[in-house]
Amino acid sequence: MKDKKTIHLDFNNMMADTIGLEHGITEQELKTLAPVANRYVNDVKEERSRGKLPFLDLPYQKNITTEIINTANSLKGKFKNLVVVGIGGSALGNTAIHTALNHPFHNILTDRERKSFPRVFVLDNVDPDRFSGLLDIVKPEETLFNFITKSGTTVETMAQFLIITKRLRDRLGKDYKDHVITTTDSENGTLREITRREGFRSFVIPGGVGGRYSVLTPVGLFSAAMSGVDIVALLEGAAFMDKVCKSDNLWENPALMGAALYFLSHTKKGKNIVVMMPYSNALSGVADWFCQLWAESLGKKFTLNNEVVHTGSTPVKAVGVVDQHSQLQLYMEGPYDKIVTFLAIKRFSKEVSIVSGNDIESDLVYLKGHALNNVMNAEFEGTRLALTEQKHPNCTLTIDELSAFTLGQLFYLFELQTAYAGKFYNVNAFDQPGVEAGKINAFAMLGRKGFEQREREIDIQLQRAQKKYHI
Amino acid sequence: MKDKKTIHLDFNNMMADTIGLEHGITEQELKTLAPVANRYVNDVKEERSRGKLPFLDLPYQKNITTEIINTANSLKGKFKNLVVVGIGGSALGNTAIHTALNHPFHNILTDRERKSFPRVFVLDNVDPDRFSGLLDIVKPEETLFNFITKSGTTVETMAQFLIITKRLRDRLGKDYKDHVITTTDSENGTLREITRREGFRSFVIPGGVGGRYSVLTPVGLFSAAMSGVDIVALLEGAAFMDKVCKSDNLWENPALMGAALYFLSHTKKGKNIVVMMPYSNALSGVADWFCQLWAESLGKKFTLNNEVVHTGSTPVKAVGVVDQHSQLQLYMEGPYDKIVTFLAIKRFSKEVSIVSGNDIESDLVYLKGHALNNVMNAEFEGTRLALTEQKHPNCTLTIDELSAFTLGQLFYLFELQTAYAGKFYNVNAFDQPGVEAGKINAFAMLGRKGFEQREREIDIQLQRAQKKYHI
Repeated sequence: MKDKKTIHLDFNNMMADTIGLEHGITEQELKTLAPVANRYVNDVKEERSRGKLPFLDLPYQKNITTEIINTANSLKGKFKNLVVVGIGGSALGNTAIHTALNHPFHNILTDRERKSFPRVFVLDNVDPDRFSGLLDIVKPEETLFNFITKSGTTVETMAQFLIITKRLRDRLGKDYKDHVITTTDSENGTLREITRREGFRSFVIPGGVGGRYSVLTPVGLFSAAMSGVDIVALLEGAAFMDKVCKSDNLWENPALMGAALYFLSHTKKGKNIVVMMPYSNALSGVADWFCQLWAESLGKKFTLNNEVVHTGSTPVKAVGVVDQHSQLQLYMEGPYDKIVTFLAIKRFSKEVSIVSGNDIESDLVYLKGHALNNVMNAEFEGTRLALTEQKHPNCTLTIDELSAFTLGQLFYLFELQTAYAGKFYNVNAFDQPGVEAGKINAFAMLGRKGFEQREREIDIQLQRAQKKYHI
Repeated sequence: MKDKKTIHLDFNNMMADTIGLEHGITEQELKTLAPVANRYVNDVKEERSRGKLPFLDLPYQKNITTEIINTANSLKGKFKNLVVVGIGGSALGNTAIHTALNHPFHNILTDRERKSFPRVFVLDNVDPDRFSGLLDIVKPEETLFNFITKSGTTVETMAQFLIITKRLRDRLGKDYKDHVITTTDSENGTLREITRREGFRSFVIPGGVGGRYSVLTPVGLFSAAMSGVDIVALLEGAAFMDKVCKSDNLWENPALMGAALYFLSHTKKGKNIVVMMPYSNALSGVADWFCQLWAESLGKKFTLNNEVVHTGSTPVKAVGVVDQHSQLQLYMEGPYDKIVTFLAIKRFSKEVSIVSGNDIESDLVYLKGHALNNVMNAEFEGTRLALTEQKHPNCTLTIDELSAFTLGQLFYLFELQTAYAGKFYNVNAFDQPGVEAGKINAFAMLGRKGFEQREREIDIQLQRAQKKYHI
């Protein structure tokens, strides 16, 4: 595998050897954890072989890939806009791929510059101003809407579905169906039911793949293919990382080591904040995607010896160089409550050199001849060194270049790392029971049938609520 | 002041009365803090009267406002693009204003739809791919570049200045000067020096106003005025909040109460994470701006009884409804290590109703007739209630509507709250010594004169560095 470009994990600055015993992890601590880690890898393998972890097999779904590519090809040039309507796991993966691989101002390019690939918008909120703003700029006749909801009942997505399809029907009559493509469960849910009745084009989200693990299903792949992303390379990258992480030896499996490092620094060293800091604007969407994956998978309560335990570290996105001028002061001098993971790219696609005239000011002369790449790199190395000197734990994932192949690797690496972390933390990394209460409250307040009892309870509670403290 | 629209702070759900003693603050704790808080208000007043806190007087700088408006008017219609080049405090305020007050897809609207106001881009990174991507889409002859750096020497901004002005000169010859406007210190720094020599249009950042407190100087106001924002109303909002917060009584001053609540929940209840969660896409930029303000002002170390104390809570941005599907699981079931501040808007500018045909699916029928505003509001109230029932501390700032006037209030409120918090934490809320080390390292690596010694030290250190731990 050494001939293929892969991700390099450097965790020297997480270790006591480098940053001292108070904040660093010892080799002994890792060695003690190794047999447990070994068992977890084998547990995961065994669950996978029983079909319990289908997200791990997504890189190998050749039929679906072909279907997506064929559909995208057949639609090429027919639409100026693709609007993805989804929220959470149905939006973050899409945004991560577009931000990483398309032109940074893709939606502002002309049709010709975009090579007739559509503009891509991800509508991930019911904010009326944003929703209405988007409808201002996309004409129904030029637009394909991809509605994505695993359950087929997500309130935000279905509310938008009702409004948008009404507008499409009013404008386009029966032809409106050609402007809708749905991505949902194969059998269940309202959106599947409507899809069948109306005869919409549709993709299936494979059973057992939760939203935050679904980027490599049609959820993420269709809009990627529509905008010209090489989804075969994306899946090959994921498959490659699957092989890289096949070892059950902690010292050879980067996903396992990542999980172990985050877990130990949290539970042994009290670092309850996990900063994901790409030195790249293009990777900022991956950081947002990771923040959902980590938070929703591991932020859990469970009962241990009759006591309720609340666990999970809080992920925070930062972007280099930008956040050196925003968050770095806190990371440097503030409490020792966080670890930083840098994502670094060795070579950017573009080279921009600072070649100025001879009249360059003497105190800027040091910049002359440097490429922006060097400036970016010096800032990254300078910051990493400064944090390390202050004994703040940090590790670095480096990719040679950003491509569909390396992005696929990153997705798979982080998903597997999160699954392993679920084992370390002893939680189910695949459910999200904590979001139900808020949903039920919202249903009750919107007057949904079957929630009348809760509606009355809320009324009583809001009447009783303290209203004493306000200014 | 009751006739004017102001911000309402509801902190019932921060209090022990509502969420219990383990996580909630008692009225007695606030009462104990009140005399101290009172003294801090008077300290701030006294420092302000001695000219030590000039950011507090920015709402009253009529001359500068007039100058900005006149300049913006004189440039109206001349440029298709305004590119703001700045980083940290020279970028976040700009982005916050545009995101809040301009059309959500401002840069995609046609010239006519934008009423000839320019497209606005904020170039806040030296990422070569993003930089080069921006230059792809803005033609020099149609573009005005506003370079912003307080010190006049910021490496990222000056690197971009050198590249951009070279390109402008190559393309436009002597006329290139009309495409540059600088915003920097009145006297010091390389950018001021070059501005004088070249005769660029220029604005002054008032002395003693640090980057993160500079949104109401030409730093934030010029690009706002250029894109049609009513900067007079913005400043009137800030002045209004100045009056709202004039009381030295903790119970009557929302900025002071905010500072006290965050401080007590951190130091007495161990909440080291501060989530800022607007239920509005338009306010997401304000949340980012707040994250810099809070982190860089309060993330500090100081010496107390010969011991070094590291302080500062970590701000995190979340956006409602979106992050209910990403972070809420962690907030609900995860550790009790955070407080959430909701920003809520009573009325959005747009109403979008869900009016669908009679064929609406029976399990979506509850949505019929609702406006998206109602859905948004039910989600917010549902989430707030669910968090409160789980005893997670939260407070809410509500504005009637989002406008220049209420945005100005928010800026001033958070700045003043941060200044008060500096007093509570006993730190200087106006410096950022912790970022120097990283800067010096970067200078050394880029070969800047005067940093040769550090360059050698870094070389030795990198050679000696552990390279043992990597995969």
